[in-house]
This record gives sequence, structure tokens and C-alpha cells, in this order.
Amino acid sequence: MTEISANAVVGQSGGPTSAINATLSGVIRGMKDAVACGLFGKIYGMKNGIEGFLEERLVDLSDMTEDNLSLLEMTPAAALGSCRLRLPAEGKNPDMYEKILGVLRKYNIRAFFYIGGNDSMDTVLKLSDYTKKHGYDLRVVGVPKTIDNDLTATDHTPGFGSAAKYIASSVKEMLRDIAVYTVRAVTIVEIMGRDAGWLTTAAALSGVSDGRAPDLIYLPEHPFSDERFLSDVRAALERRPDVMIAVSEGIRYADGTYVSAGNRSHTDAFGHVQLAGAGKALEELVRYHIGCKVRSVELNLPQRCAAHLSSLTDIRESVAIGRAAVSAATEGKSGVMMTFVRVSDNPYRADIRAADIHDIANEVRCVPPAYINADGNGVTAACLSYLRPLILGEITPCFENGVPKHFVFR
Amino acid sequence: MTEISANAVVGQSGGPTSAINATLSGVIRGMKDAVACGLFGKIYGMKNGIEGFLEERLVDLSDMTEDNLSLLEMTPAAALGSCRLRLPAEGKNPDMYEKILGVLRKYNIRAFFYIGGNDSMDTVLKLSDYTKKHGYDLRVVGVPKTIDNDLTATDHTPGFGSAAKYIASSVKEMLRDIAVYTVRAVTIVEIMGRDAGWLTTAAALSGVSDGRAPDLIYLPEHPFSDERFLSDVRAALERRPDVMIAVSEGIRYADGTYVSAGNRSHTDAFGHVQLAGAGKALEELVRYHIGCKVRSVELNLPQRCAAHLSSLTDIRESVAIGRAAVSAATEGKSGVMMTFVRVSDNPYRADIRAADIHDIANEVRCVPPAYINADGNGVTAACLSYLRPLILGEITPCFENGVPKHFVFR
Repeated sequence: MTEISANAVVGQSGGPTSAINATLSGVIRGMKDAVACGLFGKIYGMKNGIEGFLEERLVDLSDMTEDNLSLLEMTPAAALGSCRLRLPAEGKNPDMYEKILGVLRKYNIRAFFYIGGNDSMDTVLKLSDYTKKHGYDLRVVGVPKTIDNDLTATDHTPGFGSAAKYIASSVKEMLRDIAVYTVRAVTIVEIMGRDAGWLTTAAALSGVSDGRAPDLIYLPEHPFSDERFLSDVRAALERRPDVMIAVSEGIRYADGTYVSAGNRSHTDAFGHVQLAGAGKALEELVRYHIGCKVRSVELNLPQRCAAHLSSLTDIRESVAIGRAAVSAATEGKSGVMMTFVRVSDNPYRADIRAADIHDIANEVRCVPPAYINADGNGVTAACLSYLRPLILGEITPCFENGVPKHFVFR
Repeated sequence: MTEISANAVVGQSGGPTSAINATLSGVIRGMKDAVACGLFGKIYGMKNGIEGFLEERLVDLSDMTEDNLSLLEMTPAAALGSCRLRLPAEGKNPDMYEKILGVLRKYNIRAFFYIGGNDSMDTVLKLSDYTKKHGYDLRVVGVPKTIDNDLTATDHTPGFGSAAKYIASSVKEMLRDIAVYTVRAVTIVEIMGRDAGWLTTAAALSGVSDGRAPDLIYLPEHPFSDERFLSDVRAALERRPDVMIAVSEGIRYADGTYVSAGNRSHTDAFGHVQLAGAGKALEELVRYHIGCKVRSVELNLPQRCAAHLSSLTDIRESVAIGRAAVSAATEGKSGVMMTFVRVSDNPYRADIRAADIHDIANEVRCVPPAYINADGNGVTAACLSYLRPLILGEITPCFENGVPKHFVFR
């Protein structure tokens, strides 16, 4: 494979995070070294993932400067663009596979890096199996990313630490904000996470230094009960007037129905039924059953794109795992996903490995019971020990005209 | 007034901002100098504004260290606590005034600094008139603060610059986020501002460097029309798939009704009518009349408490105006509010003055017509020139365990 003319391609797929561009930078940095060593000719980027690859929308990344790579590492979202296309089974659409093989051959691409979530890893699996079966020597390496931290086979996912840092910091700032008045008031913060509560657990990190964290935390992993919730809130209001509650968007009742759905559907101005968010649903419960001042805050998009507050640990690891993907490819590995294996919490150390993509279950990794307290309304010390190192350290964002400066492909 | 035993007190009132503690720090710094010069004995802080003053909840701030003052300047919300109490007319509650006078005499307080919004300036006015009338020598000095930037008599208000920087930066990060897919999608960002659209104009600062700002901006100052809005959105979608709209919570129709109210009330799970936010209302308009993917994001509390992203200009000015308040008091001024007078945009320079509180109209200062484009769906270059200097510069926040460290009175 090591003729000079062999080239490589990298793509991004799935939902944006603050760290997916750091991994892209890591792959480019690794490839520049590989090119310098004569192992490869060029590194291409595919626009909008496999969708753009099929349309030959490729950009040459071989000459990216150090300045641009640094800026790329502090730029949120997918600089190459993303897609939601999942490769079908080969039998279902052989034309698509032949098209891919055609583009691979045309550009003599021998290494294929794909940064994404579960669906993207499925693309890695199918593409590596397909090219192997058809005798085309291609190293296919997947690099995980997701703010949800719900991929199996890895200790944590690139992107999670930065989202967790944003959540913990914003919650801490809001805890200051709600403390200024003396009247009883409940503030509910709704955090992303449909199936796994990892991001919501991060709200607890706000209190590591001074002990002031959300009073109550509810995750999708523990069945929700309106009655228990109201009794929790009443007890919290006995202890202090400024109660804060962190809640995952995906909390659900014992029967599996989402709290955001349940019987709390709203009718909008056009007479259509809309689902209220989980935070809004709990806000109404408090308003009508307790009657104190209450509001809900949805952290929303900034959770996954507030790159000015990225975790330095996350960004460094995201670059490193991108570089490691290149090493895996040059070592001849294919059909693998790069993973983190934690060696210790304190001092924190995590190694990077390549795991066989066939062994990785396409399942959601939930917050384990040992990380949730007995009452199902908070997290344990073990959870904090796991989370804490992932948000440590701050990047030094670059500002221009008072706002963060980003790298954009023109 | 200049006997050693004369003391001073400072309080905070109204809604929190990221800079109100910087002004508190400025007053304390100024007072420490005045104490060192023998002009005053002590500087007290009143807990929860005038409400706490009436209950003698005072803390001695005279010995605050340099480290704590620096930390205070990066701590959001009101460290002394706030209140919503507005002093009644003297005739309505003479007991309350006598109580205040009793506490002033007891602690021999001769300077009274009050940091707050419109209501707090009313307290400054009433208290200075009352003490003058009763022959009690008290220097009463108000220092404005509000993220809304809607006070008259000052070029801008402390706290606005930091909120504006947060909004411009978050909007810029979200513009990256929404750009990753190729499908048509409208993102509506709802920004604080019931009567004045200043904070929403700040969304336009996201594009000063690279030209990519929200496609449409709607303010309360310009009458809103559903038809014009839908035609604006359709036109924007012709130009690009990822359309972003910034909107003030207080946008209203020509007849004065809020868009968030209008005929778009929602019925909640308990059968009660709830007002949808302006963002939600526009989201529904787009969904039902245009039919493309659409979502709305409320920036919510972080707008006023994301102190890790404070504007250095705002924080420096907030400290300076607090110090200047002390100078005004030592010069014998009373019944004044400190103000900024802009000298030039570029290079930016603003002077600090003391204005007679009796001359300050208790009115909302709106975004002037010259700052809004002819179509009422964007801002002008003059608006950007006004706004830009206020968000320049970044503080270096202090982090502990991965989250911002704050100063808290114990």
C-alpha cells in the first residue's frame, strides 16, 4: 500500500460537537506526517460525509497551515459538513457501493477515516467488509464522536467532555443567578440526552469545589414518578428557597412513556398537538401542585457548539485520537474504531486503542446504576470521579471583533 | 462629613448581570482608597438591597483582599443579593423612612451607593430628597446596571456589553452548528428584551469579521407583521438553506399586542392558557406556512450570567464607574446617577459623569430608527459601530475543577 501515489480521505458525519474538528485536525496532522514520511501522497476531505464522497465533493487538505489547524481545533461543528446518510446493506443498493469503489479507485484512496457516531461506525463496518470482499486494499478507520457519551467499547467519547464542561459551567453560573432573591423559586434546567443521562450527570460537576450543585438530578435511566418528584421538590424547598433541578430531555415513567409526552401534550395556535419538553412538563407540575415561582431553561444548541468553553482535555484527546487513527491505518489496520481505555481517574490517564468494529455492539451505553443515588434523584461520588477529569483544562480561544474566530472552508 | 467615623454602604438591586459585581468591586476599591486617605471609616455592604438595609443585614467589606476583589469581578449575579423593593413615597410609609434614617444614624453612614436599574434609581432619588429634607448629611449615588441597555441619560449601561458579547458569540457558534447539513432549516433565536431590542441587535455582531450573521433580525421597536415575516423567510431560504433569525422576546404587532400573546396562546396539560414565547410563535408560523424544518432556541438565563465570557471593556468600565461613584461622593455630590458619555467610536472612548437624578426620565431608551434597516428586519452599519466597542476584549476567568470559580459571601 505504501506507494507514494496512495491517498487518504477523511469525513465527518452525524450531529455536530465542539470537538469533531479537533479530531479532523488530528487526522490531518497525522496524515501530514505520513505524507512527509512518503507513506501517502495526499489527504482529501469529503464534504458532507459519505453523501459528498459519492458526488466527488473532495477538498485537498494536504497544505493546511499550522495556524489554520489550530483555529480548526477551536471551531465548533463539522467544518467539512455532515450528513445523515447511512450506507444500506450491499444487496439493497449495489450501485451505491460500485460508485464508492469508483471514486476510491479514481483518487487512489487507500485510507478512509470516518469521524462520527453509531451510524457512522456502521458505515465503517460495511465499507471495510465490502472493500475486503472485492479485493480493494483500503484501510477503513472510524473515530467516534458524540456529546451523548453513549457509545459502547470506549471509556468516553470525544466531544462529551466539552459539552459536559459547558453544562457544568452554565449551571454554576445559573446557580449564582438564582441565589440573589429571597423568595422561593424553582429553576428546572433541561439538558440533552434522549436515551442516556450522561450530559445531565455533568450538571453535578458544578458543585465539586463549593458543594453548591443542583438539588435534584433526574436521568432517563431511572423511572420517573410525578409523586416522588413533587415530594423531592417540597423537601428541597424546606432546605433552601432557590432550588435548582437538572433533568434529561429523555426522562420517562416506569411504563416507558416519556415525561415530555405522557398526558402533557399541548395544543398550539393551529390546533395541533405538540409535545412539551421535559423541563416544561415538570415546570407545570410544580406550578399547579406546589404553586411557587417556577421556570424552565433549555440549554439547547450551545451544549454542543459552545467551543469557546471547550475542555482542554477533550480537545487534546480528540486531536490525539485522530492522529492515532492515522497510525492504525499505516500499521495496516482496517475495520476498526478508535477507543479510549481509562487507566486511572486521578491522576487521569486514558490510552487509545483500535477495536475491531465487528465486536462493537450497536447499543446505547447508559449511565450505570452505581453512578445514580438510591433515590434516583442525584449522582454518586463514583460518577463524579469518572466525570471530573474529562472537563479539566481550558483552551485559549481566538477572538476577533469580540467574538470567537473560526476556521471555515471556502 | 470627613470625620474618620463616617462610614459608607453599598447595595445591589434588580435583576442580575455579569458586571454588577464588578461595579461593587469598583465601589469597594474606591472606598478602600478613601479609607486610606482618612475620608471614611468603613465600607459596609447591605444584603438584598434596601430590604436588607432595613433589617440591618450589613457586612463589613473594608478588609476584602485584592484576590477576592478580582474574583468578585468575574462572579456573575449580585454577590450581596438583590431585592425588588421600591421605596414608596415618603407620605405613604413614613415609618419605613424613619427606620432607614435610624439605621443610617446607628452606623453613622454618610455615603450610600446603590447599583441597579430604573427602580433602584428611584430609590436614590427618594432617599437623597428625604435625607436632605431632614438635614441628614448623606451622599446618595446611583450606579446604573442592566443587560437591557434601556436607561436614559447614559450612552450604555454596565452589564450590557457582557450580555451582548455572550449573545454575539453564541449566535456565531450556532451559525457554525446549523451550517453542517444541506437540508433547508430555519433556526429562530429568542433573545431577552421586552421593550427594547438592544440585546437582539447584538446578534448582528456575530458577522462583523466574516459577514455571516443572522439573516433576519426583529426588534420590538418595529411593528411586526406575520405576512412580511413569512415573505422575509421565504426570500432568505432562496438565498441559503440554513436560515437563522434573531428575535426579541418583546416583538409586537402594529396594534401593540405581543406576538408571544396574540392569538397564539397554548393550552397546557392542566387546561390553562399559557403564553408561548415569541420564538415558539414564529416557529409555528414557519412550520405551518412554509413547512420546512424549523426550531427555536431561547438563550435564557445565560445571557445575563455567563460571566466566563464577559466583555473586558464592560468589566473595566463597570469597575471604573463604581470607583467614580466614590469620587463623586467624596466631592460632595448627592442625588446623582453615574453615566457614560461616549466621546468616540473608533478609537473607543467614553467618559464617566455624574448626572442629577432629578433630570433623569424614568423612561425606556429604545433602539433608535437610525439603527434599524428600512425593512425592519435587520440593523444598520451605524448600529454596529455603536455596539462593537462594547463587546471588545476578554477577561481571563479563573477555573477550579474545570468550572469557573466565583466569590461568594459566607
